[in-house]
Amino acid sequence: MTVDLTVPPQTRGPVRVVGTGLLGGSVGLALSARGVDVLLSDTSPTAQSLARDMGAGRLHTEAAGAVPRLVVVAAPPDVVAAVVAEELRRWPEAVVTDVASVKAEPLRTLREAGADVARYVGGHPMAGRERSGAVSARADLFAGRPWAVTTAEGTAPEAVELVRRLARDCGATPVELDPEQHDLAVALVSHTPQVAASLVAARLREAPEAAVGLAGQGLRDVTRIAASDPALWVQILTGNAGPVADVLRALREDLDRVIGALDAVRADPAAPGARGLLARAIADGGAGRDRIPGKHGAAPTHYAVLVVVVPDAPGQLALLLADIGEAGVNLEDLRLEHSPGQRVALAEVAGLPAAPAPLAVQLRQRGWTVPA
Amino acid sequence: MTVDLTVPPQTRGPVRVVGTGLLGGSVGLALSARGVDVLLSDTSPTAQSLARDMGAGRLHTEAAGAVPRLVVVAAPPDVVAAVVAEELRRWPEAVVTDVASVKAEPLRTLREAGADVARYVGGHPMAGRERSGAVSARADLFAGRPWAVTTAEGTAPEAVELVRRLARDCGATPVELDPEQHDLAVALVSHTPQVAASLVAARLREAPEAAVGLAGQGLRDVTRIAASDPALWVQILTGNAGPVADVLRALREDLDRVIGALDAVRADPAAPGARGLLARAIADGGAGRDRIPGKHGAAPTHYAVLVVVVPDAPGQLALLLADIGEAGVNLEDLRLEHSPGQRVALAEVAGLPAAPAPLAVQLRQRGWTVPA
Repeated sequence: MTVDLTVPPQTRGPVRVVGTGLLGGSVGLALSARGVDVLLSDTSPTAQSLARDMGAGRLHTEAAGAVPRLVVVAAPPDVVAAVVAEELRRWPEAVVTDVASVKAEPLRTLREAGADVARYVGGHPMAGRERSGAVSARADLFAGRPWAVTTAEGTAPEAVELVRRLARDCGATPVELDPEQHDLAVALVSHTPQVAASLVAARLREAPEAAVGLAGQGLRDVTRIAASDPALWVQILTGNAGPVADVLRALREDLDRVIGALDAVRADPAAPGARGLLARAIADGGAGRDRIPGKHGAAPTHYAVLVVVVPDAPGQLALLLADIGEAGVNLEDLRLEHSPGQRVALAEVAGLPAAPAPLAVQLRQRGWTVPA
Repeated sequence: MTVDLTVPPQTRGPVRVVGTGLLGGSVGLALSARGVDVLLSDTSPTAQSLARDMGAGRLHTEAAGAVPRLVVVAAPPDVVAAVVAEELRRWPEAVVTDVASVKAEPLRTLREAGADVARYVGGHPMAGRERSGAVSARADLFAGRPWAVTTAEGTAPEAVELVRRLARDCGATPVELDPEQHDLAVALVSHTPQVAASLVAARLREAPEAAVGLAGQGLRDVTRIAASDPALWVQILTGNAGPVADVLRALREDLDRVIGALDAVRADPAAPGARGLLARAIADGGAGRDRIPGKHGAAPTHYAVLVVVVPDAPGQLALLLADIGEAGVNLEDLRLEHSPGQRVALAEVAGLPAAPAPLAVQLRQRGWTVPA
């Protein structure tokens, strides 16, 4: 379902995967499922055998003569540059890529070490799981995700094309950036949101029971990723410390202005300028939000949205979606909203422009409560 | 569907609604739908006639002799205390409540004015819409939402019971707190998350196109409410300036510590204590997140979660949910995850404990891709 196996892969093997944990194992599974020859290698004999047993490829040691065209380094961030340098040296005809979440520092290290960086292309699939290890690997881990492909001065265009094909064969969408752009980008779209979600959620620790009882869908959305693994995030944040600190510092300046405006209002309800500053802070957030692409590349606000009342019983949501499917509408997004102790949920249904108006009419005809 | 109309209402009329905008109009619609006599009053003749035409009740001016048992003041926050005081004076036998989003300041004003506060009970339904006015009112606006009911020393218990019944008759769940608890609670669960979401989203305004192209579901969730109305939020934030500033100040201290740790790592990758501080910040967020109640009162992390691959075509999600319904499982939550340009989505399906394991087995038997 994830990757259309009837389309031939664009990647030609053998592909050597170094590090057969969650990401390396998943690359192996995705490529093997499409018939690409994958050679597995891990410093842990157990990990590489496990990946082989799961169908991620064959052990490179068992295929002594095999020379890879492409090497995917899926080693921990703190050793990735050293492993990439070693692979570039060992396979002088191969293109080498990696899957680490930071891109500028490894390239700097490679250059300083005199590595042949024309054959190195940075990679970063925007995918992960709450579990790690080859045992958690899946062929569809990258399906539907962006896969950052970073290039620098001197990178060979053919090498870049090979890594773009790898991303597509794994079901992902390649997005090209330079390493510094990438590190700032993930600071903006991933690392800063994580810190903000965690800090907002942390404020709830000491909240009285009645206070958390007032929680609505907004709080649930803002804090969902606060449930992430602390150990993993320490590695991610420290690996991108500079860009993350820069974005957080800009955010803190905005926060200081908001606090200042609130203090001014508290001291004098008619404080000049305070309301304008607060309105601008919220409006700027809306403008930023508008830049996030939706499923088909458009910003989510461009979809029309319906709210439908769904009785809280097995099968009701299925009935609703069956009715939506019969109306020929392809959902962009669906979100269930509910609160403790209630017998109904609200389903927020987002559809392509023009679709929802007739959809609302059709759903009402079928007996659904669709508030205007 | 929203309010079970076969159960008799607990509220006895006449109920007078002062202010027939979104909230007042919706209270009128909800009560009228259940046969309660609702008397409408608004300083705008157009607004009150519109609410009447929508079925929210009858005009109080036309029923000169009608004496309300309960008055619901749904006036703008800056006049709510004055209107409540006037209603308490005018209807000496009635209980008066309101729906304003801040509770401490109005009560203080009422006490200073010598109002009969034993008959006043603060109310705050945790519901809203992106549109305002009676024309946007709906009978199900409060369905499934918490409705804060605030009491103070001297509030008559019978008065509190009347307002609890009002909330339940509107389909909401009453949550009792004192006014200061309420204002701190909404600062924590609503106002601070809004500011954080807006500030994180605002950082995206200047981001390069390729950077926002890396956005995933985490960013979408954190910034969803950043699309809120600036004018509305200026009123809400300035109305609760003290508690919001206090929570934001505590959040800024946490943020300063995170920035300090990142700067320390940037200066010296082996900086002592920095990693521990970052891990604690993320772990504290997880602990706070665990306190948010889910649909049936339990924290969301207590539900087991399945991820299912859903082809991006009309009717596929309906098929999936039909299969889930046939398995007798009542969904706690459902979330669609997708990225630009992809042909599949991932559905995250949360069910009651014990349910998901056999559900995964059943779904696989029906041909769905359910990664382990």
